[in-house]
Amino acid sequence: MNIVNAEELHRLLKGKIRVVPVLDNIDRKLLSLLYTPGVAEIAVKCAHEPSLTFEYTRRWNTVAVVSDGSAVLGLGNIGAHGALPVMEGKALLFKIFADLDAIPLCLKTHDTELMIQIVKALEPSFGGINLEDIAAPRCFEILKRLERELDIPVFHDDQQGTAVVVCAALKNALKVVGKKLEEIRIVVNGIGAAGYNIVKFLFKMGAGEIVPVDKNGILNPYDPSTCLHEYHMELAKMVNPDGKKGSLQDALKGADVFIGVSRGKLVTPDMVRSMAGDPVVFALANPVPEIDPSLAREAGARIVATGRSDFPNQVNNLLAFPGIMKGAMKARSRITEKMLFAAIEAIANSCEPESERILPEAYDEHVHENVFKAVVSTSNT
Amino acid sequence: MNIVNAEELHRLLKGKIRVVPVLDNIDRKLLSLLYTPGVAEIAVKCAHEPSLTFEYTRRWNTVAVVSDGSAVLGLGNIGAHGALPVMEGKALLFKIFADLDAIPLCLKTHDTELMIQIVKALEPSFGGINLEDIAAPRCFEILKRLERELDIPVFHDDQQGTAVVVCAALKNALKVVGKKLEEIRIVVNGIGAAGYNIVKFLFKMGAGEIVPVDKNGILNPYDPSTCLHEYHMELAKMVNPDGKKGSLQDALKGADVFIGVSRGKLVTPDMVRSMAGDPVVFALANPVPEIDPSLAREAGARIVATGRSDFPNQVNNLLAFPGIMKGAMKARSRITEKMLFAAIEAIANSCEPESERILPEAYDEHVHENVFKAVVSTSNT
Repeated sequence: MNIVNAEELHRLLKGKIRVVPVLDNIDRKLLSLLYTPGVAEIAVKCAHEPSLTFEYTRRWNTVAVVSDGSAVLGLGNIGAHGALPVMEGKALLFKIFADLDAIPLCLKTHDTELMIQIVKALEPSFGGINLEDIAAPRCFEILKRLERELDIPVFHDDQQGTAVVVCAALKNALKVVGKKLEEIRIVVNGIGAAGYNIVKFLFKMGAGEIVPVDKNGILNPYDPSTCLHEYHMELAKMVNPDGKKGSLQDALKGADVFIGVSRGKLVTPDMVRSMAGDPVVFALANPVPEIDPSLAREAGARIVATGRSDFPNQVNNLLAFPGIMKGAMKARSRITEKMLFAAIEAIANSCEPESERILPEAYDEHVHENVFKAVVSTSNT
Repeated sequence: MNIVNAEELHRLLKGKIRVVPVLDNIDRKLLSLLYTPGVAEIAVKCAHEPSLTFEYTRRWNTVAVVSDGSAVLGLGNIGAHGALPVMEGKALLFKIFADLDAIPLCLKTHDTELMIQIVKALEPSFGGINLEDIAAPRCFEILKRLERELDIPVFHDDQQGTAVVVCAALKNALKVVGKKLEEIRIVVNGIGAAGYNIVKFLFKMGAGEIVPVDKNGILNPYDPSTCLHEYHMELAKMVNPDGKKGSLQDALKGADVFIGVSRGKLVTPDMVRSMAGDPVVFALANPVPEIDPSLAREAGARIVATGRSDFPNQVNNLLAFPGIMKGAMKARSRITEKMLFAAIEAIANSCEPESERILPEAYDEHVHENVFKAVVSTSNT
C-alpha cells in the first residue's frame, strides 16, 4: 500500500480489527449445535460450573482493553471517543504479538466506582482485563480493587507494563556502566501511573536509594504538601523515611540514574552534569523527553533512553504486555509480582546490552515468547 | 466434520468467534500509523468530533450483544456464565447473516440501573446494542431508558425481534385463511418480553380485538390482581378498556387467533375447538409448545406455528434481527417503529404463504437482504 499518513490509512481501513467465525463454512447442522437448540446443554453446564466458559467459549483467549480516555498517550484526558482508535490499536497489538482476541471497551465515565462495577460485571465474558490510559490516582484504586475482586488477570499497562520495561532497561544499563542496583541512587521524576510502580518495583528489587520527585519536589512523609494523594504518601514512607527534602535539581546531585516519566524539558544539561559518574538518563516523557537525548549525551550521560522510536533505546511497553497477559491467561492466574519480575528478567535477558541497545527489539517475536514462557513458568513453581 | 453432539463441537472449537486484524501483513511502518505515534492525531480528531469514530474505527460495524442471563432460551435465569455460549452463538449469527462484528457481553448483575449505566458507558465503543435474554419486566425499563438516552440503535430481540416475526407470520397466516386483521379477535397468552410487544404491535397495526392473558387471566385494568406490573396495566388500559374478564379458556372461545409465548401444554384440543372457524394457533413456547402441533391440527387448527425447527412454520427471530440491526446501523439511526413495521412487511413479503409455509426460510440470505433494505429505506423518507 502506498499510504501517506495516519488519517488516510484510518479512513481507508475503517477499523483495525474485526470479528470472524472460528470456523469457515458453518452450515445449518453446525449452527443448530452452536446455537439453539444445541447450545442449551452447554449453557446449563456453564451455569453450573462457570470455569467451563474457558473450555466451551472463546473466553480463554479474550481480553478487554478498558479505558476511560483520561490519560491517553501524551494527550491527557481526551475521553472515550478519543481513546477508541488508540484502544483498537492496542487490540491489534495484542493480536499480532500474542494472538489474543482483544476488545476495545472505552467507557464514557470517569467515576472510579462505576468503572470498577462495570469491569466486575463484565468479568464472565473475558479471560483477562487490560486497563489502559486511565489517569492517576484513579487508576491505583481501580487496579487495586479489581486485582482483589476478580479472579482473572487484571493488568494496567501504564502502571505495571511501563515499570517492567523500565526495570529491564535499567538492569541492562547497569550492566553496561558496571554499577550494582544495590549501590546506586535513582531519581524517579513524575509519580503518576508509571512512576508509582517504578518506585515500588525498584524498592522490591533492592535498589540502593530511590528518590521519588513530583510537582512539589521530593516526596517527603513529613511534608504533606509534597504528596498529592495517599499513594504519594505511601511511597514517601516507603523510600524516604529520613525525610529528605528538595527539588528535582537537588535530588539529581550525585544521583546515578534519572528516570523521568513526567513531561518535556524539565532537565537541563547542568543537572545531568551534577549527577555521579557515568550517569544513566531515561527521559521517557512523550512526545517531548525531559531532556533532548543529544543534549543529555553532550552533558555526559553514558546511556540515554527515551519513549520514542526515532532515538536509540526506546522504552516500549510493547516488550512486556503481550507476553505478560498471554502468560497469565495461559496460567489462568491473576497477575502476580513473581510474574512481573520474571518478565523483567526475560526482557533484560533477551538482548546483549550495549550503550545504544539496552533493550531487545520489540518487533522481534522472540522476546514475546520469552516473556510468555517466563510468566507461565512462575505459576508452576 | 464428523461431529456427534454440541458438547464435542464446543470442546473442539473453544469459541465461536475470534478477532483478526482487518489487514494482513501489518508491518512496522503501518503499525506506527495505526498505533503510536500516528494514532495520536486520529485520537484528537475523534475527541473533538465523536462521530468520526464511525469513520476511523470499526465502531460502524460493531454490535454489543448484552445479556444478564436472566431469561436464556427456555432455561430461565442461568446467569452470565450460562449465557456466554449462547451470546457467542448470537454473535456468530450476526456475522453470518449480517456481516456485523458482534461482541458477547454477559453481565454478572441483575441490577436494572447498573445495567443501564454499563451500556451507557460502553456506547462510544459500539455502533449498536442488541439486548438479549433479559427477563421481563426489567427488560422493558432497560430498553425504554436506553432508547431514550443513547443515540445508537438499541434492540431487544426477545421483545422487538420476536414481535416482528410473529406479526409477519400472522399477516401471512391471515392471507391463507382469508381473514382481515381489523376484523378478528386475537388472544395473546404470556405477557412477558415478547407478548408485551406483540400486543403493542398488533394494536398499532389495527387488529380488531386483542385479548392479553397472563397467569391471572385476562389483563383487566379494573382488576389489579390480573396485572403483575405497570407494563401489564399499560396494556390492559390500551386494549381492554371495557374490562373483559376471564381465564385463557374463556378468552379463546370464538377467537380467531391464539398466540402463545408462555409455556408448554397450557392449551387443550377442546380450547382449540372452541375457537372461531379456521383458527390460527401459534404455540411458540420452547422447547414444549402450548399445544402439540398435531393435536392442534386434529382439533381443527387451520394453521399451526411453533418456535421449533422440527415442525413447519417455525417462528424464528433469525428472520428479523440481522437485517434490522444492520439497517439501523447503516442508517446511523435509533430503531424506529417505522423500521420495525417495514421489517414485518419485508419478512411477510419474502414468501408466498401456504398453510405450512407462512414464513420465509431463515437460512435464505434473501430475506435478510430484504429486511436490511426495507429498514434502511425508512430512514430516507
